[in-house]
Amino acid sequence: MKKVSLLAPGPTPVPPRTLLAMAQPLIHHRSSDFADLFGRVRQGLKNIFKTKNEVLVFCSSGTGAMESAVANLLSPGDKAIAVRGGKFGERWSEILEAYGCQPVNLEVEWGRAVKPEAVAKLLAADPAIKAVYVQALETSTGVEHPIKELAQATKKTGAVLVVDAVSALGAYDIPCDQWGLDVVISGSQKALMLPPGLAFVSIGPKALAAMKQSKCPKYYFSWAKELKNQTENKGAFTSPVPLFVGLLDVFQLIEEMGLDKIYAETALKSRAFKAAVAAWGLKLYSQDNPSVGLTAVEAPAGVNGQDVVGWLKNKYAIFIAGGQAQAKGKIFRVAHMGYISEFDTLQAISAIEMALAGLGYKFEMGAGVAAAQKVFGEA
Amino acid sequence: MKKVSLLAPGPTPVPPRTLLAMAQPLIHHRSSDFADLFGRVRQGLKNIFKTKNEVLVFCSSGTGAMESAVANLLSPGDKAIAVRGGKFGERWSEILEAYGCQPVNLEVEWGRAVKPEAVAKLLAADPAIKAVYVQALETSTGVEHPIKELAQATKKTGAVLVVDAVSALGAYDIPCDQWGLDVVISGSQKALMLPPGLAFVSIGPKALAAMKQSKCPKYYFSWAKELKNQTENKGAFTSPVPLFVGLLDVFQLIEEMGLDKIYAETALKSRAFKAAVAAWGLKLYSQDNPSVGLTAVEAPAGVNGQDVVGWLKNKYAIFIAGGQAQAKGKIFRVAHMGYISEFDTLQAISAIEMALAGLGYKFEMGAGVAAAQKVFGEA
Repeated sequence: MKKVSLLAPGPTPVPPRTLLAMAQPLIHHRSSDFADLFGRVRQGLKNIFKTKNEVLVFCSSGTGAMESAVANLLSPGDKAIAVRGGKFGERWSEILEAYGCQPVNLEVEWGRAVKPEAVAKLLAADPAIKAVYVQALETSTGVEHPIKELAQATKKTGAVLVVDAVSALGAYDIPCDQWGLDVVISGSQKALMLPPGLAFVSIGPKALAAMKQSKCPKYYFSWAKELKNQTENKGAFTSPVPLFVGLLDVFQLIEEMGLDKIYAETALKSRAFKAAVAAWGLKLYSQDNPSVGLTAVEAPAGVNGQDVVGWLKNKYAIFIAGGQAQAKGKIFRVAHMGYISEFDTLQAISAIEMALAGLGYKFEMGAGVAAAQKVFGEA
Repeated sequence: MKKVSLLAPGPTPVPPRTLLAMAQPLIHHRSSDFADLFGRVRQGLKNIFKTKNEVLVFCSSGTGAMESAVANLLSPGDKAIAVRGGKFGERWSEILEAYGCQPVNLEVEWGRAVKPEAVAKLLAADPAIKAVYVQALETSTGVEHPIKELAQATKKTGAVLVVDAVSALGAYDIPCDQWGLDVVISGSQKALMLPPGLAFVSIGPKALAAMKQSKCPKYYFSWAKELKNQTENKGAFTSPVPLFVGLLDVFQLIEEMGLDKIYAETALKSRAFKAAVAAWGLKLYSQDNPSVGLTAVEAPAGVNGQDVVGWLKNKYAIFIAGGQAQAKGKIFRVAHMGYISEFDTLQAISAIEMALAGLGYKFEMGAGVAAAQKVFGEA
């Protein structure tokens, strides 16, 4: 009877109608019906990525798509910048090392955004650098990196800009073509409101040229193979049919509401939640560009962030996220993207208040809820 | 209103109760509930693989798991035998080449099974060969390769035996430990009655030793990383939660029925279908070891196999499969594995009779249905 609430930055809740759409009997992945579905999914992805580039679909977690952006763009020994401002930034270095490439590690303090000038400087100093790997929204810190400016910094160089937008795409506007983003990666389980299992990669002309030079091994994640197949509305390998059905359903929901309205509502939930954090007298972990997609909160002195997460999980079956790696225990994180309503947000605020009080933090109970209600009420 | 029937060798139909189980609201992939589910799924996999080895779960199609068995076992330049008796056998060579390994191609005529002596001879001639890659059931030809005998042939050599059992596991008995199979691969969308999206790899001691020497790049498909995580009942990356829920439901169905009974019923459906083929005066494409998991039928002279497939699809919304690559047009294939009943099998037989008659083949209408009914009736 426990009423579970998912308020962690992925997987986010799936709309019940989408869950039921995915529960329909399977259609065959080599049928004309599936090809029709595939074609509509391709167009829907292009609409959300705001791109004319092809957006490939892989059956994997987002990490698989991240790996594909190393394996398909580089050759062993190649240098590439990894913007390391959190756990997912550090993952870029790990993948680069796994493929025998040379990561040029750009260390960014957790909670800070990368400075575009720092990237520009590295690129100017070493024209051999082939790519820049960065997150749009570094999920582990709640910070948005300045993607538009990074695109300016890379545009006139030989380096391909690769943006992990797994938790960003659909939470706020990342206009791929307008900003000139060479590669953008996303996944099904965040703002796209689906279960995990699909990853997406948009590939622009500069990336296609780099792909042709790449000598790293790839097979399942081969862009060339999937480009050949997916432009004919089929996957090279067996496609996870129900997730395609779900994705089309989600695109319909998004179209009904309109992307701009979704971005505005995500921003509103974020503003309301951040008002609650201020009312508690707590600080955001994100010192630069706190994201609208999620909020990372510093736990008060004397309270372990993991205990807040555990309190919500064990007492109320509400799932928020703790900190990862060096942020573990110091923070807790709450999502605003996807199928999360203003009242889900108020529920999270209310539950966190009860946890903070229970864990001995002194503050005015209800202050956060009131602050958030005020933001919602004025909107 | 079209009543769709999936009778192709994957994806197979998913039991409605399993579809609904998967439509439940998601639980979080980093929760103790999911860890409990993961642990039960691990045990369920070991039961079906009949192994004490760890069986890893990946979010990918079966091809991803095949690739993992190259990337995690070999180093660039390594030699390995690829048993090429069909489209999936040929895929081994493609993956080996993608990773800079040297495939020792063992060509087997499509429709034939590999001779264990041929593998033994190659291994004896070149002790540098590090692995043997083969299918248990070559889905493109309907042939079962002699896996037990291949295990005998490789056991005393330095070579690791890697068995792709994507369409075999759960259709007939492949006792991993009893036969001494080093690596066995499977997927969710065949005899395990689930949508595509999960792939499995069991890893024995000899393979673990080879893994430690392997220098091919891997990240998403890293066995070492997943062994570390999955033995603690979690995935290294975001797990596709609903498929885990579905898998546990399927394991419950399998346990209720019993593996032996499932194998017997699959064999019975196969026998009935093959009796129909004989009654039509047609031949199996599988000249050696025709599988119980599916039947590959040679289209009669003057009839294109694709037209049989198209007839069923367009007129009756029944999905069977045609031939692939060199077998295209020559054959059609019908599955017996998974959630397919004897009456689904009779439906396929009946529909094929109507297609064959419509396409001008002369035979006694109803003879196949009667022959199959006789087999079912006597069972």
